[in-house]
Amino acid sequence: MPKIYKEHVTPLNLKPKMTVNELIKEMAKSGCFGAGRLAEAVDIYERMLREKATIFFGLSGAMTPAGLRKIVADLIKNKMISVLVSTGANMVHDVLEAFGGHHYKGTWLVDDKSLHRYEIDRVYDIFIPETVFVSKFDRPILDVFREIEKEYRGQSLGIKDFMFEIGKRLPPDENSVLYNAYKHKVPVFVPAIQDSCFGLQMWELVVKFKEAGIAVDTFKDLSAFLELLMNSKKNGALIVGGGVPKNFILQAAFKTSASYDYAIQITTDRPESGGLSGATLEEAVSWGKINEKASRIQVISDATICFPILVAATMERLGKGQ
Amino acid sequence: MPKIYKEHVTPLNLKPKMTVNELIKEMAKSGCFGAGRLAEAVDIYERMLREKATIFFGLSGAMTPAGLRKIVADLIKNKMISVLVSTGANMVHDVLEAFGGHHYKGTWLVDDKSLHRYEIDRVYDIFIPETVFVSKFDRPILDVFREIEKEYRGQSLGIKDFMFEIGKRLPPDENSVLYNAYKHKVPVFVPAIQDSCFGLQMWELVVKFKEAGIAVDTFKDLSAFLELLMNSKKNGALIVGGGVPKNFILQAAFKTSASYDYAIQITTDRPESGGLSGATLEEAVSWGKINEKASRIQVISDATICFPILVAATMERLGKGQ
Amino acid sequence: MPKIYKEHVTPLNLKPKMTVNELIKEMAKSGCFGAGRLAEAVDIYERMLREKATIFFGLSGAMTPAGLRKIVADLIKNKMISVLVSTGANMVHDVLEAFGGHHYKGTWLVDDKSLHRYEIDRVYDIFIPETVFVSKFDRPILDVFREIEKEYRGQSLGIKDFMFEIGKRLPPDENSVLYNAYKHKVPVFVPAIQDSCFGLQMWELVVKFKEAGIAVDTFKDLSAFLELLMNSKKNGALIVGGGVPKNFILQAAFKTSASYDYAIQITTDRPESGGLSGATLEEAVSWGKINEKASRIQVISDATICFPILVAATMERLGKGQ
Amino acid sequence: MPKIYKEHVTPLNLKPKMTVNELIKEMAKSGCFGAGRLAEAVDIYERMLREKATIFFGLSGAMTPAGLRKIVADLIKNKMISVLVSTGANMVHDVLEAFGGHHYKGTWLVDDKSLHRYEIDRVYDIFIPETVFVSKFDRPILDVFREIEKEYRGQSLGIKDFMFEIGKRLPPDENSVLYNAYKHKVPVFVPAIQDSCFGLQMWELVVKFKEAGIAVDTFKDLSAFLELLMNSKKNGALIVGGGVPKNFILQAAFKTSASYDYAIQITTDRPESGGLSGATLEEAVSWGKINEKASRIQVISDATICFPILVAATMERLGKGQ
Repeated sequence: MPKIYKEHVTPLNLKPKMTVNELIKEMAKSGCFGAGRLAEAVDIYERMLREKATIFFGLSGAMTPAGLRKIVADLIKNKMISVLVSTGANMVHDVLEAFGGHHYKGTWLVDDKSLHRYEIDRVYDIFIPETVFVSKFDRPILDVFREIEKEYRGQSLGIKDFMFEIGKRLPPDENSVLYNAYKHKVPVFVPAIQDSCFGLQMWELVVKFKEAGIAVDTFKDLSAFLELLMNSKKNGALIVGGGVPKNFILQAAFKTSASYDYAIQITTDRPESGGLSGATLEEAVSWGKINEKASRIQVISDATICFPILVAATMERLGKGQ
Repeated sequence: MPKIYKEHVTPLNLKPKMTVNELIKEMAKSGCFGAGRLAEAVDIYERMLREKATIFFGLSGAMTPAGLRKIVADLIKNKMISVLVSTGANMVHDVLEAFGGHHYKGTWLVDDKSLHRYEIDRVYDIFIPETVFVSKFDRPILDVFREIEKEYRGQSLGIKDFMFEIGKRLPPDENSVLYNAYKHKVPVFVPAIQDSCFGLQMWELVVKFKEAGIAVDTFKDLSAFLELLMNSKKNGALIVGGGVPKNFILQAAFKTSASYDYAIQITTDRPESGGLSGATLEEAVSWGKINEKASRIQVISDATICFPILVAATMERLGKGQ
Repeated sequence: MPKIYKEHVTPLNLKPKMTVNELIKEMAKSGCFGAGRLAEAVDIYERMLREKATIFFGLSGAMTPAGLRKIVADLIKNKMISVLVSTGANMVHDVLEAFGGHHYKGTWLVDDKSLHRYEIDRVYDIFIPETVFVSKFDRPILDVFREIEKEYRGQSLGIKDFMFEIGKRLPPDENSVLYNAYKHKVPVFVPAIQDSCFGLQMWELVVKFKEAGIAVDTFKDLSAFLELLMNSKKNGALIVGGGVPKNFILQAAFKTSASYDYAIQITTDRPESGGLSGATLEEAVSWGKINEKASRIQVISDATICFPILVAATMERLGKGQ
Repeated sequence: MPKIYKEHVTPLNLKPKMTVNELIKEMAKSGCFGAGRLAEAVDIYERMLREKATIFFGLSGAMTPAGLRKIVADLIKNKMISVLVSTGANMVHDVLEAFGGHHYKGTWLVDDKSLHRYEIDRVYDIFIPETVFVSKFDRPILDVFREIEKEYRGQSLGIKDFMFEIGKRLPPDENSVLYNAYKHKVPVFVPAIQDSCFGLQMWELVVKFKEAGIAVDTFKDLSAFLELLMNSKKNGALIVGGGVPKNFILQAAFKTSASYDYAIQITTDRPESGGLSGATLEEAVSWGKINEKASRIQVISDATICFPILVAATMERLGKGQ
């Protein structure tokens, strides 16, 4: 009989005041189910960093309103990610906070009709008063757009360039993803930018931009992204959620010579409905997006819990973060 | 005591040779759980059509490779949808079949490393030989792009216009979504088009397009979409899956005077992870995207099962489809 | 290259007034994702019946309150199942309706504190007034228990015998699972019977039963179940939901010479959390519970939608049901 | 406008070497989504313990094979739970390890037919060689059963008594749940005991037990459980997974004067399929099982990750655990 199994499961041993990484090490000893997957993710992320991979970070789901923006900002500052691919909404809500706005703790057990009358927008258990949205996002971002319009007359911008120009014009907020991305020159790709409040606000300026001869070109970013991927010795994908960021990061390795050497995804999406968000990382191997020998793991669990744990444990191992 | 409940649950009564709509009527009699939700969705879709709402249809998940493209094509032909918002991938795979390619029945129980060696790309239990991808999508779409480049030198296109130009150049495939959308003048919005194989193929032509002075403008479509929404007497959202199509359809009603009077979503995504895909339709009421009095239902189930049932039952009620 | 894929996906073709089985045949043509799984389940169920397998039917989740009890009753009458394994709750709510009670259509969007004040018990979107529970279940079942106590003094009963005695004493309700199981001599196993309102009502009689020397013996049913399994030429498992019924049906084939030749499960539970409810049917092959050559499929979707479809399509194929 | 929202979301601030409870406090500052729920669970568990509630602990899913048995054993030793309600399987696998057996780290990416040929039983990514099962569970538990048979001739046992007798006869394994439950007199309820390998092994002895006049009485435990509940000043429910343990714990408060003052559930099951495992804790309020003023929270996430975190953080707060 071949030795087709590994060492035995060792029960987790908890101690008061144990650190996050000590807990992860206990989870590694058990090695099973979600705990085993999370422990493996920490190992892979540590290796990505030690082996100096270019790390493509995908961000979807309402992570910045949920309080994860400082973590992403810290990853940028500590050079723990190299490239950011995000949904539009995550950057919108980051900008709102950079301009001094806040998201509020609410509840999912609520009558949305009442919220509508009080002009409060709900994101699961987060509340955003419409007045905050208007004063801390809509108005200031329009001013930013107008500045960009003046500076780039007659030119064609990629979405990445557009995000950089926004980051440049934000108040210096140390917790802001977009401000820090600008400051530390981490490119930010937002492939579906029109599908967000950036798009809705641009609507007011579309005519003006057109007159000014500015176009934000849909396809322009791809070259830059592919060059980053193809010019790196090792590539790692670190994906929170799924959606466009996951697909955009992985598809870049489809028709090219490059592929990912490491991949981590934290998601609750599952494969059987056939969407790419929940597709296994093994599936990406068939396409050549992730290479056959890559270290890869999907943590099938809540990102607001597992992503902070992953980062805290990895920081502890590398002495990063402070 | 107030009458806070409705009529009692009547057990489903099955009969051999019952039609799909007869089954749905039995599900309505029970009225509970998923069956009740699906039956309610049929009622709402029927009402959307009878009351002549403009119907915004969102399509995400790998629905065209999974064999649902003819259904969407039939919805277009029978005027059962007015506007299509799709992921890029769904249109890519529709184009592949329009050019004579096929998707193959495979299995999810497979070694992806072997598939990679045989150059077969996997989408859950669908297999696509790489040779098919190259000969039936990559090459013919490049020819289409080159034709567009010649015709539109020096101009700025919206993504919707770009999709129209693609549809115009497809072989006349009666099962094709994009061909029928072109033929029947149903606008197709693909907000994240660069996040698909359209994007990957455009990469080769980016320089050429730039020299030709063509830009596919990221923000251009929004005006057209918002006008469609604001100029309709009644608006309905019919959403298969979630993702960018769901958000794009709903966000348009956020800062505008318009809102949706009917909304149906078929998805397995759930709200607690905070992503918009799984957010309840009630949440959209707080934002004013769906209006307070709207008929709305989320069918929390597999779209490849429930979407065909929804369409078949509605066709039966309206005598549409043949 | 080996022929590792099957025929190509053929798009579903919908027609008004198509029957449920005609729809299933279209789903078989596509063969993908949930639709493909459901179509395969119909094929397997048809084969189980044509090849005269002993069919072990597992029922969990609140299926009888949700209006599926007549379907199960019809399966019994039409000899489409041989053995029933159920949660206690499904039988409790079947008994409640047999005694003339009803479940009511409610809503999941409700304040449960208010419901509590109005004495209405909620099961997702089903409401049960406490008065109905008391008058149509608690009181009549106590009378039934008292009759059993008189008849079985000094004896030891298995749970299956106990369920038979209950079925015998129900009003003749043609829609009732338990009444029809009694009438058609289909054994009903309820391994966790104390974990239901049967248990709560028995609590009042525990002392009386003890004085009468009656014991409902926890382990007695196993022999009968194992004999049914081991004496059949072919065994099929048809499982709605998961839970104790799934485990009880499958475990019987663990340490014995028998195993299942066919297996279908309809569930939304997933394997990664490690529970048996969501475990793949492949996993059961490793244990020898399902044999290596068995036809098996998991339909990962809402049972209130898929179970009626499965039964209606199979009845249509076999001309059963009326 | 009423003050319908609370304080604003404060972004999580990660530090290397932070303890588990320090991380939880950051999650509390954000307060959203899964992180917010988990932080609230720690608060509620802390309060349950400080306010000396009787804590009914439910355990389902394959938690003991996955390495969580020492945590449960520690909860017993530290008086952090008062009563255990478990699936049979969790106790079976605890016994297997108490007798010196092990579970092995495997993988979910495996051919189950091969495993079957090598006689390895799979539980998601855990492997159990059949030889281990036979020598470390089947044989020693039969000896235990034979001893019980000799001691209890002519008597009727409850399942709880039966589990106590098993615990008494285990080797003194400090990591064992059942051994520690026996040692520290924590009652163990296993309502569906026959639905486990205890049942399968008892099958061999059923005739012998019958001859000896022993019956393990299905309904006997309910009185003891209800007395524990009704005689406590405050009751807390701490539920890992769902299934029979969840229902059994909650149903006890249905028809009685008692109810739960605190409730925590960690599960990935969702309410819309109508099963009790995924039902919201709010639903239990309508039935009067959880009282209206109770502190309650459902952590909708992987238990192998969240349960160790919950326990470690609570131990840290209370200085328990060492």
